[in-house]
Amino acid sequence: MSGEFDLIARHFCPLAAPEALSLLDDAALLPVSGTLALTADAMVAGVHFLPNDPADLVARKLLRVNLSDLAAMSAEPVGYLVTMAVPYGTEEAWFAAFAGGLAADQAEFGVRLLGGDTTATPGPLTLSLTALGRVTTPLRRQGAQPGDGLFVTGTIGDAALGLLALQGKLADPTGTLVERYRLPRPRLGLRLGEIAHAGLDVSDGLVQDVGHLCACSGVAAVIEAALVPLSAAARAAGAKLETILTGGDDYELAIALPPGAEALLPGGVAFTRIGQFEAGPPAVRVVDAQNQPVPLERAGWQHFR
Amino acid sequence: MSGEFDLIARHFCPLAAPEALSLLDDAALLPVSGTLALTADAMVAGVHFLPNDPADLVARKLLRVNLSDLAAMSAEPVGYLVTMAVPYGTEEAWFAAFAGGLAADQAEFGVRLLGGDTTATPGPLTLSLTALGRVTTPLRRQGAQPGDGLFVTGTIGDAALGLLALQGKLADPTGTLVERYRLPRPRLGLRLGEIAHAGLDVSDGLVQDVGHLCACSGVAAVIEAALVPLSAAARAAGAKLETILTGGDDYELAIALPPGAEALLPGGVAFTRIGQFEAGPPAVRVVDAQNQPVPLERAGWQHFR
Repeated sequence: MSGEFDLIARHFCPLAAPEALSLLDDAALLPVSGTLALTADAMVAGVHFLPNDPADLVARKLLRVNLSDLAAMSAEPVGYLVTMAVPYGTEEAWFAAFAGGLAADQAEFGVRLLGGDTTATPGPLTLSLTALGRVTTPLRRQGAQPGDGLFVTGTIGDAALGLLALQGKLADPTGTLVERYRLPRPRLGLRLGEIAHAGLDVSDGLVQDVGHLCACSGVAAVIEAALVPLSAAARAAGAKLETILTGGDDYELAIALPPGAEALLPGGVAFTRIGQFEAGPPAVRVVDAQNQPVPLERAGWQHFR
Repeated sequence: MSGEFDLIARHFCPLAAPEALSLLDDAALLPVSGTLALTADAMVAGVHFLPNDPADLVARKLLRVNLSDLAAMSAEPVGYLVTMAVPYGTEEAWFAAFAGGLAADQAEFGVRLLGGDTTATPGPLTLSLTALGRVTTPLRRQGAQPGDGLFVTGTIGDAALGLLALQGKLADPTGTLVERYRLPRPRLGLRLGEIAHAGLDVSDGLVQDVGHLCACSGVAAVIEAALVPLSAAARAAGAKLETILTGGDDYELAIALPPGAEALLPGGVAFTRIGQFEAGPPAVRVVDAQNQPVPLERAGWQHFR
């Protein structure tokens, strides 16, 4: 096992932006003009990913959940800082794979490493990443208005089903669901701040996250369960509706779109109308095709419950 | 125990800057014009602090070690993001004390919370903080030149002695040493970028950190052990010279000062000349008052050794 400084030089310096000063100084120096979007998320082995998940996929998920937060604000990524508390005895090959995952996503999303910290821990692998983005017209959680349509990108529920598949509770013959759990696709580059009234990314569960939009905007929402877009793999898996509606980790965007703005939605990504916002105290109703309430045991994920 | 969102609203929203958008959105939005200094450090219970250290002091140390990195670059703090992986079953009182520590240091250092994440962990408390600062004339680790004086702020070795005191290996009747270990004083506001050639903060141990200055600057350094400033408490504790020279966690600044610049050093903080930089391959020699080499078993701290 190499020393800390060797590990950084060998595996992380190749990822570093020029502004990171070869990771040798006490801080990066980043010239900025405009508005920065700043977000940070932590991930713990056994909580946010499975302890035996491949290191490269863990790295990419860590980066992508943060890029998804930037996407949720209609920001474009600039760079990131990452801190790692790594179990004693971790092999150097693990660091190489982890850095390889970051390298792959740096190329895919046009971001670079700005700094960080590596330490050892007697506990589980614990990761934290702070992402910086540039934003011109931000998309906020507040601003949804009665009459706005509720739209989501992509398909909903796949990641929660992927977790069930990894736990052996569900068949996933194509591996699609597991991949959605392990490798979210941040919905960057859509410039939704210019056309939507409000939005966020779906990370805690669709119903709960739409509830956040309602709470921040002071409106109610109705989700028509039959309209929620499912992937072919999710249909084939025969998942419970509740899992689809309340499972986390999809990292799709949910937005409030004013009437008439549908034609302005960008191409290349599927947007599906799944309901609408209404006047009323913040609350989410889920209804079936007969407009009857769909009962749910819980809305989504919270830690420390 | 409250839910995650309640905890955030109750304990962390009062700390939030306006740019943090009440911690309700997916990212903070920070208008910036100029150069940002960015740094991140992680801390793990049992590694960087003792598991039973008071929560408010842990919070303040976490913030301060990052502010010290900003000070090392001659940057002034703007704000920070913090992620916390907190052991299952942690009481709400712990969060209240942790937030209280942050509040105290926010007032002291003029920074505010910009965002973060809170999650549960089956492992030890694991914290990560990203600090942002503004910098006009940065102080880098590169730039030290032969003939520059090597200066440090404050006193050296107290924090390492404080750790020994907490471990029962040393007497600390005044509590001064323990306080230096638990509560570093980031040397902010000194504007050293304008007068020093190079600098950093002493966090891994004096000899090792001066070695970093040498490596980045391509010069050698001599430390005259007898000149290293000790506190009265350190003298009274009768510490080994090696502990003073190689112990970490002091968070004083070490700088390379060109000849004649001593008169330009700011007031209010003690600066002590402890040696000089010389031409030669990067290396640190420690000599005694008779100019004889002082043997050291190790230079400082590294994780993963």
